[in-house]
Amino acid sequence: MRSFFTIITSSTSIGHHLFSRLSSRRSHSVSLNLTLNRHTPPPMAATEESLRRNLAEMLSAVDSQGSSVRALKASKAPKTEIDAAIEALNRLKLEKSSIERQLQSIVSGNGADNSVTREAFRQAVANTLERRLFYIPSFKIYRGVAGLYDYGPPGCAVKSNVLSFWRQHFVLEEDMLEVDCPCVTPEVVLKASGHVDKFTDLMVKDEKTGTCYRADHLLKDFCKDKLEKDLSISAEKAAELKQVLATLDDFSAEELGAKIKEYGIIAPDTKNPLSDPYPFNLMFQTSIGPSGLTPGYMRPETAQGIFVNFKDLYYYNGNKLPFAAAQIGQAFRNEISPRQGLLRVREFTLAEIEHFVDPEDKSHPKYSEVVNLEFLMFPREEQMSGQSARNIPLGEAVSKGIVNNQTLGYFIGRVYLFLTRLGIDKKRMRFRQHLANEMAHYAADCWDAEIECSYGWIECVGIADRSAFDLKAHTDRSGVALVAQEKFLEPKELEELVIVPVKKELGLAFRGNQKNVVEALEAMNEKEAMDMKAELESKGEVEFYVCTLEKNVCIKKNMLSISKEKKKVHHRVFTPSVIEPSFGIGRIIYCLYEHSFYTRPSKAGDEQLNVFRFPPLVAPIKCTVFPLVQCQKYDEVAKVISKSLKVAGISHKIDITGTSIGKRYARTDELGVPFAITVDKTSSVTIRERDSKDQIRVNVDEAASVVNAVIDGQRTWEDIWSSYPHHSEECEE
Amino acid sequence: MRSFFTIITSSTSIGHHLFSRLSSRRSHSVSLNLTLNRHTPPPMAATEESLRRNLAEMLSAVDSQGSSVRALKASKAPKTEIDAAIEALNRLKLEKSSIERQLQSIVSGNGADNSVTREAFRQAVANTLERRLFYIPSFKIYRGVAGLYDYGPPGCAVKSNVLSFWRQHFVLEEDMLEVDCPCVTPEVVLKASGHVDKFTDLMVKDEKTGTCYRADHLLKDFCKDKLEKDLSISAEKAAELKQVLATLDDFSAEELGAKIKEYGIIAPDTKNPLSDPYPFNLMFQTSIGPSGLTPGYMRPETAQGIFVNFKDLYYYNGNKLPFAAAQIGQAFRNEISPRQGLLRVREFTLAEIEHFVDPEDKSHPKYSEVVNLEFLMFPREEQMSGQSARNIPLGEAVSKGIVNNQTLGYFIGRVYLFLTRLGIDKKRMRFRQHLANEMAHYAADCWDAEIECSYGWIECVGIADRSAFDLKAHTDRSGVALVAQEKFLEPKELEELVIVPVKKELGLAFRGNQKNVVEALEAMNEKEAMDMKAELESKGEVEFYVCTLEKNVCIKKNMLSISKEKKKVHHRVFTPSVIEPSFGIGRIIYCLYEHSFYTRPSKAGDEQLNVFRFPPLVAPIKCTVFPLVQCQKYDEVAKVISKSLKVAGISHKIDITGTSIGKRYARTDELGVPFAITVDKTSSVTIRERDSKDQIRVNVDEAASVVNAVIDGQRTWEDIWSSYPHHSEECEE
Repeated sequence: MRSFFTIITSSTSIGHHLFSRLSSRRSHSVSLNLTLNRHTPPPMAATEESLRRNLAEMLSAVDSQGSSVRALKASKAPKTEIDAAIEALNRLKLEKSSIERQLQSIVSGNGADNSVTREAFRQAVANTLERRLFYIPSFKIYRGVAGLYDYGPPGCAVKSNVLSFWRQHFVLEEDMLEVDCPCVTPEVVLKASGHVDKFTDLMVKDEKTGTCYRADHLLKDFCKDKLEKDLSISAEKAAELKQVLATLDDFSAEELGAKIKEYGIIAPDTKNPLSDPYPFNLMFQTSIGPSGLTPGYMRPETAQGIFVNFKDLYYYNGNKLPFAAAQIGQAFRNEISPRQGLLRVREFTLAEIEHFVDPEDKSHPKYSEVVNLEFLMFPREEQMSGQSARNIPLGEAVSKGIVNNQTLGYFIGRVYLFLTRLGIDKKRMRFRQHLANEMAHYAADCWDAEIECSYGWIECVGIADRSAFDLKAHTDRSGVALVAQEKFLEPKELEELVIVPVKKELGLAFRGNQKNVVEALEAMNEKEAMDMKAELESKGEVEFYVCTLEKNVCIKKNMLSISKEKKKVHHRVFTPSVIEPSFGIGRIIYCLYEHSFYTRPSKAGDEQLNVFRFPPLVAPIKCTVFPLVQCQKYDEVAKVISKSLKVAGISHKIDITGTSIGKRYARTDELGVPFAITVDKTSSVTIRERDSKDQIRVNVDEAASVVNAVIDGQRTWEDIWSSYPHHSEECEE
Repeated sequence: MRSFFTIITSSTSIGHHLFSRLSSRRSHSVSLNLTLNRHTPPPMAATEESLRRNLAEMLSAVDSQGSSVRALKASKAPKTEIDAAIEALNRLKLEKSSIERQLQSIVSGNGADNSVTREAFRQAVANTLERRLFYIPSFKIYRGVAGLYDYGPPGCAVKSNVLSFWRQHFVLEEDMLEVDCPCVTPEVVLKASGHVDKFTDLMVKDEKTGTCYRADHLLKDFCKDKLEKDLSISAEKAAELKQVLATLDDFSAEELGAKIKEYGIIAPDTKNPLSDPYPFNLMFQTSIGPSGLTPGYMRPETAQGIFVNFKDLYYYNGNKLPFAAAQIGQAFRNEISPRQGLLRVREFTLAEIEHFVDPEDKSHPKYSEVVNLEFLMFPREEQMSGQSARNIPLGEAVSKGIVNNQTLGYFIGRVYLFLTRLGIDKKRMRFRQHLANEMAHYAADCWDAEIECSYGWIECVGIADRSAFDLKAHTDRSGVALVAQEKFLEPKELEELVIVPVKKELGLAFRGNQKNVVEALEAMNEKEAMDMKAELESKGEVEFYVCTLEKNVCIKKNMLSISKEKKKVHHRVFTPSVIEPSFGIGRIIYCLYEHSFYTRPSKAGDEQLNVFRFPPLVAPIKCTVFPLVQCQKYDEVAKVISKSLKVAGISHKIDITGTSIGKRYARTDELGVPFAITVDKTSSVTIRERDSKDQIRVNVDEAASVVNAVIDGQRTWEDIWSSYPHHSEECEE
């Protein structure tokens, strides 16, 4: 491990990565090899490059032909000659336009149409979500605050359903130890975790107005804009801009500043010059207690609350490994200028798991339950070689070592099951492995569950094997050993390396440097020591590098003894590794909205109706009850059904407005309510399923139990559909 | 309403009240009448006063007899005389001690024993809670932070159960609109609510070290200490100190400072002098965004998030009143020096309801469902006259006007049902009405659900009719009208008061004061105006007080016309009243722990075993499964049962440690697990109920459904007990 630690000082700041933001706080990643960067574009598509070259040629051809025409006119050449030259010029211009069009279509992501469609789709979803109060920009009557959103009633119900299911799927089924820690956190904790020093984004300021911008965003916008809108740039320039886009996540403050200067980037709103980039800490700072002397922060993640409690939790678990602790709670990040609506916010709900495991045994007892799952995975190799994500059986990924270990694999499988059961489309979901330069230096392996939505591929869950880093950091800072013990069934005889420097000889040889040499000798690992022993025995002396002296010294045989001694040990003490699945609940919910949304024409065909195809698990309300017309008899039947639904624990609403039944269906479709019971007789009612719009006729006293059976998953709608008489409603929609 | 608003400027700071803290933020209460203060002690108990007088007499008697003895000795009086005088002195001393003992017992709350018992009980509960990780002092390895606590695994499960039940009992059963707003709140919102200016406590600083103290705490401690430990103070002094204790919640900074000076109170830790008291705002401050120009706070309550969304929520509810919105979430208060463990913390979970209602109709459609409840209520009258809380039927309290209106009464009833179903002892719970000086000036009526625990009576839920205050405050500050409309079925003809000043005449009569007079005339309410009209018609002129001029003026008939005009109106626009039940979830849970805790001797009688008698609803785990001895057959049976429990959704644990069954029972009793299934055969098992320790024998395949039936409330344990064969286990406990 030791050698890794020397790298930490040169690591880039935390929170610098756009797409790996959930875990970015700790991705002290180092881009040692820019050419192998994950963002390195695949070699520029042949067509694009040749089009750029053709365009450049064509531009100069147009230019020179233009000159010819002007020259002919000036020299009063014969009209036929001039006309011919003009015709040639027009041909060239047409050709140029055609090349421009082709190029335009390529640079705007293979079809501007596609991005227009995405934008329109996103707008349709957003309109429905906002109109039906799934969410509300916070403090709207005071013109709101960027990056803060409220969940309105249906959004709140969806969130509560997602969290309940999370608790069921992970905490209860896996016997995890759930904890609930405060958001207000004293500085010392976040100093230990690295957040105080490294949880920063690089910022530039408008030198006149003081408006702040994220430096990487400005550079990114500039490059994208140039590539998409300025078709005249050379193929070389285009390649350079692409390289910048691919690597800017790893730029230092100096590199970013240099590029901003080189490209002449100015403040987008005012055109004023910009300051040099400097780091801005993303934590909301506050002060604990009245003295003003105890700085504190609003936690940027929930994980630290678990780490600092490791000792108690380990004890609670009977001093046994492995075990997992979990926490659901608010986290806070004071983004510089939040964009991307609900995906990049300043306060959000995280659900995090810390699974503590013996680093020497990362098998998982329930691994066999997920081994046969198969889904889209995007390993490092495929990303580096420009390939796409592909379906890989989880068992294969683990056995081939693509996924580092069983426990990591188990959680990848469980996350897959969690997301798909919520209603995330498995075709638009993939597990992407972090590249070497994205990962924290101490991490063994990291995978992100990414979901595709109108904003692109969004990291929604990070699953990382963080080795012993966090527990060690808190052990070091607090002085409390956060370790586990393995008691051996019977004592083990172990060989132990013993290095005994002969101080007298060393003193004679090295005088004032003796201490440095002794420390370096004692710090040798087993291999280094045994190699030295062999060399001393064969040659009598050996060259030895002392890093604190920055030079080689000559060690002789009489200066130390190296041996191995046998020792009986009864247990081993070690720092557990932690495997951390971390869920951005708000992002998952947003992607779920997009994956569940569709429109269909109204019966009259004059408008598009919006539908959310939420599974019953997620739906904010499971069932509505509609008396067809306003009359006391029907209202009473509705009440009877409502009572049975309540007993069965099914959340539902009665809608007694006199609105047409079609309108009422449309209204509940927009909320994603899966079933509607319409009271149109006193003996029997109809039950309508949202997506098929199929209706069956059921006796009043059966209605609640039929709905319950489908919601509970005991029966499918298809099964119900084949067991009850069908109902066709003339006047629907 | 208007006259109330003039009082606001003289209101005391928010957050000043110890026992009404949950709602204190807005209790701009004014103590107009100190002698009627709720804290005014009942006349000092006759015995205490006479004992203090007797003690004073006895002290001077001992003193003078001592002098006599010394004088006799000095004058070498005969030994017999001296001995007699000494004997008399000793008799007096004995008598003095006896009076001191009696007095001591009275001043320490009728028996020091009682407080010792309370302290010991609290300690026993705390030990169990901390040892079993119900809670953990936050950031313990870094020596913690005062006023911050984690919920450990069982505590987290209890909290989650309490919140689920709250959501079921209030949000779902009452069709409330739940929202979820951020904790980070911009200043403008909390400026409107009054928190930025008034949410303060008075603080003093150690002038040398800068250590901060709550000024009222120091004064309180001083008075209590003096009363309990200095028996020599006069009855008059004792009465004065008691009066201070009774009224200090209403002291201004100046009054507190004066008393601290008068009593010579110094810093308790260093004996240094103290600064004058000054207000400290209890909100955690932060800054939103990178500019440092947008101050924000961590919300001190969740209610404001609902108020600012009123318009959208009203629309969502089909523009109909009444409706309620609800929110569960974290709230933050930067206490000066938190005491009282889990009851006074810096971050806590609130669950708040804002029920919006037409101020002209505060009836509630489901009122009849609670009207027959009867429980301890402590109305204003009883508190003022020194009586105790008493059982009052809720219907009576509402019909007699003790509780202001039906809706307030309905929520009091619902809160009662909520708390008792959680397991709060109804004999140690009461609803206490706020006294006039405790309530905000705008509030119509307030009741606190108080629960008695080892710390005394603790406010756990505040239920307040806050009238239109909050919506009006945000309407004023934001400029967005937070109002409701009532559409009349048919237009109403209303009489409207019309006051038309004749400016010419008024100008002639009042010149420079004309404007003040005109404004005062136009501000008259209907009664004032009609009285003036009558008087003008009979006498031709009238004396009229103009408050902005602070004098009477003479108004003549020709100076204005007063009339009533008929007008057709189609709707009325008004600001809804809000009735707010606000739940301190952490406090409720702590009281629940104390009410659920008891000890019983172990079977051997050599130790006390701890038990939490949580109802299944609350219990962190519902059931444990114990294979009696470690063998594969029993383990397999345990797994089969576990599977059925899982299908039934019952949270449970299997404990396969080889520990004695008695120890395993004791261990789960400490977690409050209601049922244990012990596998001691392969065909049948025993089920043990926690509190009775009764065991029945049940077939393996019935076990899960029997436990489920009791947990669901379908059957009682008594019922089960009479239907199955009993089992007596020799070796238990």
